[in-house]
Amino acid sequence: MRLAHLIGPELRDLLRNEPEEIASLLDEVHPEDLADVVLDLDDDEAAALLKRLPADDAADIFERLPEGRQENLVEKIGFQLTARIAGEMAADDRADLFSALPEDVGDQLLETLEKVDPEAAEEVEELTRWPETSAGHLMNTQYVSVLPSVTAGEALDAVRRGAADDDIEMIYYVYVATAEEKLLGIVSLRQLLIANPSAPITEVMIENVISVTPETDQEAVAKMMAKYDMQALPVTDANGTFLGIITVDDTIDVMTEEQTEDVHRLGGVQPIDDPYFETTFWTLIKKRAGWLSVLFIGELFTGTALRHYDDVIKSVATLSYYVPLLISTGGNSGSQSSSLIIRGLAVGEVKTSDWWRVLYREAGQGVVLGLVLSMVGILRVMMWGDGPRFAALIGVTLIFIVAGGCTIGSMLPLIIKRLGFDPATSSTPFIASLIDVVGILIYFNVAKLILAQVLAQAAAVPH
Amino acid sequence: MRLAHLIGPELRDLLRNEPEEIASLLDEVHPEDLADVVLDLDDDEAAALLKRLPADDAADIFERLPEGRQENLVEKIGFQLTARIAGEMAADDRADLFSALPEDVGDQLLETLEKVDPEAAEEVEELTRWPETSAGHLMNTQYVSVLPSVTAGEALDAVRRGAADDDIEMIYYVYVATAEEKLLGIVSLRQLLIANPSAPITEVMIENVISVTPETDQEAVAKMMAKYDMQALPVTDANGTFLGIITVDDTIDVMTEEQTEDVHRLGGVQPIDDPYFETTFWTLIKKRAGWLSVLFIGELFTGTALRHYDDVIKSVATLSYYVPLLISTGGNSGSQSSSLIIRGLAVGEVKTSDWWRVLYREAGQGVVLGLVLSMVGILRVMMWGDGPRFAALIGVTLIFIVAGGCTIGSMLPLIIKRLGFDPATSSTPFIASLIDVVGILIYFNVAKLILAQVLAQAAAVPH
Repeated sequence: MRLAHLIGPELRDLLRNEPEEIASLLDEVHPEDLADVVLDLDDDEAAALLKRLPADDAADIFERLPEGRQENLVEKIGFQLTARIAGEMAADDRADLFSALPEDVGDQLLETLEKVDPEAAEEVEELTRWPETSAGHLMNTQYVSVLPSVTAGEALDAVRRGAADDDIEMIYYVYVATAEEKLLGIVSLRQLLIANPSAPITEVMIENVISVTPETDQEAVAKMMAKYDMQALPVTDANGTFLGIITVDDTIDVMTEEQTEDVHRLGGVQPIDDPYFETTFWTLIKKRAGWLSVLFIGELFTGTALRHYDDVIKSVATLSYYVPLLISTGGNSGSQSSSLIIRGLAVGEVKTSDWWRVLYREAGQGVVLGLVLSMVGILRVMMWGDGPRFAALIGVTLIFIVAGGCTIGSMLPLIIKRLGFDPATSSTPFIASLIDVVGILIYFNVAKLILAQVLAQAAAVPH
Repeated sequence: MRLAHLIGPELRDLLRNEPEEIASLLDEVHPEDLADVVLDLDDDEAAALLKRLPADDAADIFERLPEGRQENLVEKIGFQLTARIAGEMAADDRADLFSALPEDVGDQLLETLEKVDPEAAEEVEELTRWPETSAGHLMNTQYVSVLPSVTAGEALDAVRRGAADDDIEMIYYVYVATAEEKLLGIVSLRQLLIANPSAPITEVMIENVISVTPETDQEAVAKMMAKYDMQALPVTDANGTFLGIITVDDTIDVMTEEQTEDVHRLGGVQPIDDPYFETTFWTLIKKRAGWLSVLFIGELFTGTALRHYDDVIKSVATLSYYVPLLISTGGNSGSQSSSLIIRGLAVGEVKTSDWWRVLYREAGQGVVLGLVLSMVGILRVMMWGDGPRFAALIGVTLIFIVAGGCTIGSMLPLIIKRLGFDPATSSTPFIASLIDVVGILIYFNVAKLILAQVLAQAAAVPH
């Protein structure tokens, strides 16, 4: 990483003065570090750099850039060069590029690619058939496969040939498939190395293959690979036809992407694909304004609720001083519960069918936590000198509000998941808004009970 | 996963009636699925099962169980059997077990392990020297290494021998090291397969090795592996002595663990290691009560702030009806900003040195978003019939509060990171509490300005 900072200025200098030296300078630097450097350049500088590099080196950098940058660079370097670079990209990264481009740009680029590298163009069409977050879109279509009639030794030779082929990303598994591409089994390179070379491959292979369909969501794919510690996961269609493999490095990228989405959703932002500083000001506004307005409109009901207790508040103004404290405490306990349940659902520790166990547990948590806070609360009420009735009111309300917060905060993600949406969408602020309104209703109803005498006296005195 | 549900009941039945059949039933099931099944058993049933299995099969299951379960099971199956199982566990999982056990239990188990498997006991002492979330604790000490004097063909033979050795988890890299364990270079098995067998290994290897020190935090390790798409990362000490390797599957576990921590922290819960249902009720209370109390005490200041404006509120009760709406809107915009910045910091897109760019941007976002909401807000004020002065008050306050929310929400994570803590600790509810108090101050000060005339009139009329 230090490297990236070091070569940044030097690179800019070379670009300006001796552009023909670029390729040799970059030979020794990891493509990831180069991509970091390119990210710091402006679009014109980056385009100048890509033009100077051999297409395969340019592809190594280009496929690591965020989508927004890729789109800008396509404009700058033109379809012809982009197509040549795309031809050298990994199949899955290439498919991502086409999915990210505006449709007309993508179509024109595909036309150019068909002339430059027809095989790559075909792969793009194959992969982009599937939704962008599905296994089909994520897979690589180049792998080492052998017929079931070969021996272990012959399979090892196939691996050697695969190792020499730059288009094959993963050579640590050999896939045994029929001539009709029906997947029969898998052998790891490790098993091949210790197998008797003359043994039939069908005796060495594992037949009980764990695979996914191309429609499987990428999050489910990542979970399976993480669970079974696999380096690659085969993708087969409903008929058992072998379509491609998903490699572990893609899984890691998916996990990072999904986590970013979850954190954004939890914060009440529509997920943003590009890095923070690569996202334009107005895109950011668009991703935020929607939810923020929905939450705002939800919060307007707190005003409606408070107006409903107009008489009570006018009689005892002190009541209103506790409102923010009470409702935000409900919100806080709710976000604790929801973050526990949302994460539990994400990693598969909690299932929607567990709802009653969760309900029972969270309501219990709420009562205990409510009791703890109500002791602190009562102390503070006495210190403010609002008297024992208010102390009782705040104490009781806290127990109800915290228990309510925990219940709503834990149930809402389960309900949202059950309805088929991402539970992280029941973002913390959304739950908090709901609890705010409920909290006000709880508070003033408890107040009417406990302060009945005080309120009656206040009403008797004309303003 | 369907499998786990299927074999659960059958397994219970066998355990009770024909325990000697257990081992054969489980032969065909993936250890991960077995661990799922064991998780559903109670401690006694799980102990009975582990006692029935050969130690290496038991180890495959045991190392996948959450820490709390492991601790219970150690008690149930005794030190002798646990030590035998631990002897068969992967070095890093074994070290985790010892770190998770209470100190006296761990010490007794280590004594037993020294008798059963002295080499494993030594490895435990080697790995547990390092902090639990460090590279040293995560590494495997068994790998394929060769001297710099060998040829590529001899190195390939070393890989073959490694492939047959169950203690070596990763055979896809060969490490070239001196007799004194100084790491000189790395060769991937792929490169070995295509290299000329008679070529000296020093000509095939990559010398520019990316490595970490044993003290490196696991989060940084995971980020490096994700960035460079590596299957294994070597760990070397300050003198370049080769200590072990970290494999990609551990990285995936680390990522999941760190993500869980982040989501919990964002929800204002102290991170919980064990799965939700494996965590006891009172552990959960302990992890929640602390933060919830801190936030509660923080929110008490909203009461103090409101009391400060006692006169104003008593003059115009309507003012208090807007308090929850305004402060929670500030909180919502703040949590949007903080979730964007916290995630940006986590993936390295945002650095603390970018603070002024973030400040500039987020303040701008706040003003624009505030304008949007203030249009909705003004409309609602007019509909409630609170008049043009109130409309102006709410409109202006919203702009200030949302801009303030975005500013605080984005700066706080940067400040916390700068102070050396996890930015996710500036959890959403924490930021919201801070903004609540600031919001009240903004609101009533704007109110005093805009409603000066109204307030003066109200003061002139005695209650």
